[in-house]
Amino acid sequence: MIGIDIGGANVKFATDGGVDTVYCPLWEGAPLAGVLSRYRDAGEEAAVVMSGELADCFRTKSEGVSWITRTVREVFPEALFYGTDGRFHDSPVPALAAANWLASAAFLHARDPEGLLVDMGSTTTDIVPLASLSPLYGLTDLLRLQKGYLVYTGLLRTTIPAAIRSVSLAGVPTPVSAEQFSISADAHLVLDHIREPGYSCDTPDRKGRDRTSCLRRLARVVCADLEEIGEEGALMVAEAFWYAQREVIYDTVTRVIKESGARRIYTAGTGSGLLASTLGGTDLTSEIGPAATALPAFAVREVLRRSRG
Amino acid sequence: MIGIDIGGANVKFATDGGVDTVYCPLWEGAPLAGVLSRYRDAGEEAAVVMSGELADCFRTKSEGVSWITRTVREVFPEALFYGTDGRFHDSPVPALAAANWLASAAFLHARDPEGLLVDMGSTTTDIVPLASLSPLYGLTDLLRLQKGYLVYTGLLRTTIPAAIRSVSLAGVPTPVSAEQFSISADAHLVLDHIREPGYSCDTPDRKGRDRTSCLRRLARVVCADLEEIGEEGALMVAEAFWYAQREVIYDTVTRVIKESGARRIYTAGTGSGLLASTLGGTDLTSEIGPAATALPAFAVREVLRRSRG
Repeated sequence: MIGIDIGGANVKFATDGGVDTVYCPLWEGAPLAGVLSRYRDAGEEAAVVMSGELADCFRTKSEGVSWITRTVREVFPEALFYGTDGRFHDSPVPALAAANWLASAAFLHARDPEGLLVDMGSTTTDIVPLASLSPLYGLTDLLRLQKGYLVYTGLLRTTIPAAIRSVSLAGVPTPVSAEQFSISADAHLVLDHIREPGYSCDTPDRKGRDRTSCLRRLARVVCADLEEIGEEGALMVAEAFWYAQREVIYDTVTRVIKESGARRIYTAGTGSGLLASTLGGTDLTSEIGPAATALPAFAVREVLRRSRG
Repeated sequence: MIGIDIGGANVKFATDGGVDTVYCPLWEGAPLAGVLSRYRDAGEEAAVVMSGELADCFRTKSEGVSWITRTVREVFPEALFYGTDGRFHDSPVPALAAANWLASAAFLHARDPEGLLVDMGSTTTDIVPLASLSPLYGLTDLLRLQKGYLVYTGLLRTTIPAAIRSVSLAGVPTPVSAEQFSISADAHLVLDHIREPGYSCDTPDRKGRDRTSCLRRLARVVCADLEEIGEEGALMVAEAFWYAQREVIYDTVTRVIKESGARRIYTAGTGSGLLASTLGGTDLTSEIGPAATALPAFAVREVLRRSRG
């Protein structure tokens, strides 16, 4: 059996051989069927979760759910899709929208009902109390934003002005440009939180992922060439961004811990290591290996297996 | 003589016949030479300003200045380019970067040295005290951001999360998505500040510019379908955005007035009318007509003429 998590930007696969993440931006018309076909021989059965229905190539989420379901079933005709109702479905019901985080919770709940999952992906961070599954059923992305269970900030794709309004350069407050000149991947690369192969999404300017190219993009955030503000200035932009990003995650985790009574943090996702060192808590990669970086894909496969006893 | 203002997103032309704005996103490889050629017969002479060198298709601003200068001169071999040194040049010197606002100031200074120009375009808002030109010479975009002379917010292209972190929906604080799901043009259209033909840039999802399509994009900012939050919810996103945008412009204008001692506000740009009704002051379209919506293009032509006068 294969586990598949279809996001807007990435498709993740979990098989007996391990996990894979493939950059596949649906809003740019990336060939999802082609990507899926490459994993066809990993097993006829597929357990699937999604969040890619939010991509704005779809007019509505139901349109997205239908298209994704149909595309998956063309490649895996027997695929079953996990929903926010905690059940598997073989057809495109609304509950299939954004249920990937719930698969992770369903997998981890038995492990530690006093735990809190914090899963930082390329684009978003899911914060899920593991105490009980039933209060989680039916939560949409909108409701999760409101409850602090979904923080729309990620390790790679978040634009800098979505997190900071200004940065102090040599002591001078400097408002930032609203353009998508630079993204979180640039900040995390120059801060040594990721390396070039970890910069797995497109660069905003379609130029390099090397350190200098990242610094250039960060400098442009204050409408400057790198030569104008120097590496020091570009690093200040990266640091201001990471400070703000860390703060929003920390504050939201604190709020959810307070409201849920969770006692232990488990980190997952492509930002798992960074999160664990920032928040404290257990990095799930130390327990389940690389599967933790594609947790919903891994989890939905486990959950379907368990449901079959 | 023709006046030309080459921005990253739009090229503006001023001729005896009036002004034109052509959407021409340089970072997407839009055919600048082709756009310019259409205006070739308007006169051999061209007075040119630019700000498009900041577009991230160029590695540095000098690369952008060189490319734009070369492209213009292929079509208008005698073109002269106004710089932040207040002079005209026939070759790509660094001073040509982002001098368009200075052309406007040079044109308006004599009219009212106690005035403050506030020019809101599709992408940015320039705030320029008209008291004296010499302190303005040499100001880069970086320095203007720091002085409050450049506010990176505009009538059409500003992404919603660049201005707001959350919105209150039926009393519930709701953080917004960091994606470029929706832009200021969506907000201003549903708030009746602009109409469909005024939505002159691309839509983020390449879908329609009609009111319902705008409302859908605004709803997606909180990860919702329009059906989930209703028109009322989508309007709350638009209103929260406009409130924040208005506030940053108002606060910065107030600061610059305080520091410069300016006594009267003149508004220009595609947001001129909206600005005038928000800030008070004189809408320059009432004095110089539609030329005020493409002020730097109009102004650079006047400044070159005067310099020969």
